[in-house]
Amino acid sequence: MSIDVVFIPQSLVPGDLAGRTVVVVDILRATTTIAVALANGAKAVLPAGTTEEAMRIAQNLERDAVILAGERKSERIQGFALGNSPAEFSPDAVGGKTIVMSTTNGTAAFATTQGAREVIACAAVNFSAVVERCRAALAEHGDLVILCAGSERRFALEDAFAAGRLIKVLLPEGGAKGVTINDAAVASLELARHFGERWGRALKASVHGRELVELGFRADLDACAAQDTHPVLPLYADRRITAYRPANEG
Amino acid sequence: MSIDVVFIPQSLVPGDLAGRTVVVVDILRATTTIAVALANGAKAVLPAGTTEEAMRIAQNLERDAVILAGERKSERIQGFALGNSPAEFSPDAVGGKTIVMSTTNGTAAFATTQGAREVIACAAVNFSAVVERCRAALAEHGDLVILCAGSERRFALEDAFAAGRLIKVLLPEGGAKGVTINDAAVASLELARHFGERWGRALKASVHGRELVELGFRADLDACAAQDTHPVLPLYADRRITAYRPANEG
Repeated sequence: MSIDVVFIPQSLVPGDLAGRTVVVVDILRATTTIAVALANGAKAVLPAGTTEEAMRIAQNLERDAVILAGERKSERIQGFALGNSPAEFSPDAVGGKTIVMSTTNGTAAFATTQGAREVIACAAVNFSAVVERCRAALAEHGDLVILCAGSERRFALEDAFAAGRLIKVLLPEGGAKGVTINDAAVASLELARHFGERWGRALKASVHGRELVELGFRADLDACAAQDTHPVLPLYADRRITAYRPANEG
Repeated sequence: MSIDVVFIPQSLVPGDLAGRTVVVVDILRATTTIAVALANGAKAVLPAGTTEEAMRIAQNLERDAVILAGERKSERIQGFALGNSPAEFSPDAVGGKTIVMSTTNGTAAFATTQGAREVIACAAVNFSAVVERCRAALAEHGDLVILCAGSERRFALEDAFAAGRLIKVLLPEGGAKGVTINDAAVASLELARHFGERWGRALKASVHGRELVELGFRADLDACAAQDTHPVLPLYADRRITAYRPANEG
């Protein structure tokens, strides 16, 4: 069994993710917002690299069915309906809609996962749903990659902490024995041990978390730190993120 | 006072290091080997990105005064006199020589430091000499960047551990209060706390450390883990790394 962590997408070389189960983490705030949107009834979230790409994608969709969302320097992109605060993605705002979304780090991370077997969006708000899916993937394929979005090419503490939490839960009782983990996974586990089970502690310790508080987004931090409030499994495939629904639910 | 850690040179954007004091860490093995070479009497080490660049640089130097050194996939570059094992860089081998050196990660890291105020090569073998210089730089300028070479674009545990050791020693008695440290520095400190004072523990836990043991370089790991065996301060400027000698030593 092997679990790898990648701290920034820029560390990837082509083929690194081919055929693997990939968990994308951008806890402040893209993967949190995506999980909230899908749990609140959005049909799909379509990640876009640039503002222009987002507008181009939206033009090909029915005007009433699409919402443009995203941020630059943490603030809503001018002219877009929604920013990147989970609270904006309420059932009223997003129910039945397709959201085209462009954020600084998170949406670009999804674009690097081409060739992966399955791509899961992970946040605290949907943590247990992700854990369950990862357990199944490890049991079946013995392999998992956690891809942190990072912060503008740099290591992001909050994503590494989330990766560590996930690994800690997934490791067998006895710890990492018999499991191959890479250097970034070792460091992530140490952060999970240090910050413990309280997501908020790690989020508030991170540079980006402190920036968000300074910009007036303190409520977002609390929303991003709340575990299992939105139990949904967002899967990325064919450039769309949709909520997984077991076949027997129709 | 601020201390930043950069886990891989690929995280840097132009200007990140401008005017700053930079500590380059590639403990397995480039910065260790560089310190050993200079302590053993080498005149200078000239980092080269590629094998071809190394040969081009060497051609412009006196044949008897120059040694080509370096590795690819941890093994000596074909046709080069030395590889990247500290033990090869004995006083007999390197005394009075200029070494042109190309390694997979370490020598490229130096090339990214253009515009820095001062660039220091750090290893365990010269740790206290580096600490002393960093203390002076922090007292004077209040700012320090530790640049880890990483491992082929990826996070390397041994370099992050070294960064954490360095920060731990440099922080005031009371810890990080009043000192701004970035997310990577927080994670590095956790690794320093986890692995403690024994360099060998972290080196042997790292993916690259285990690879070196498998390739028969176990003795290199021991050499790289030995603190202060080669008390020299290697400074990089004008594409050359030389040992700092205080003015009053002539």
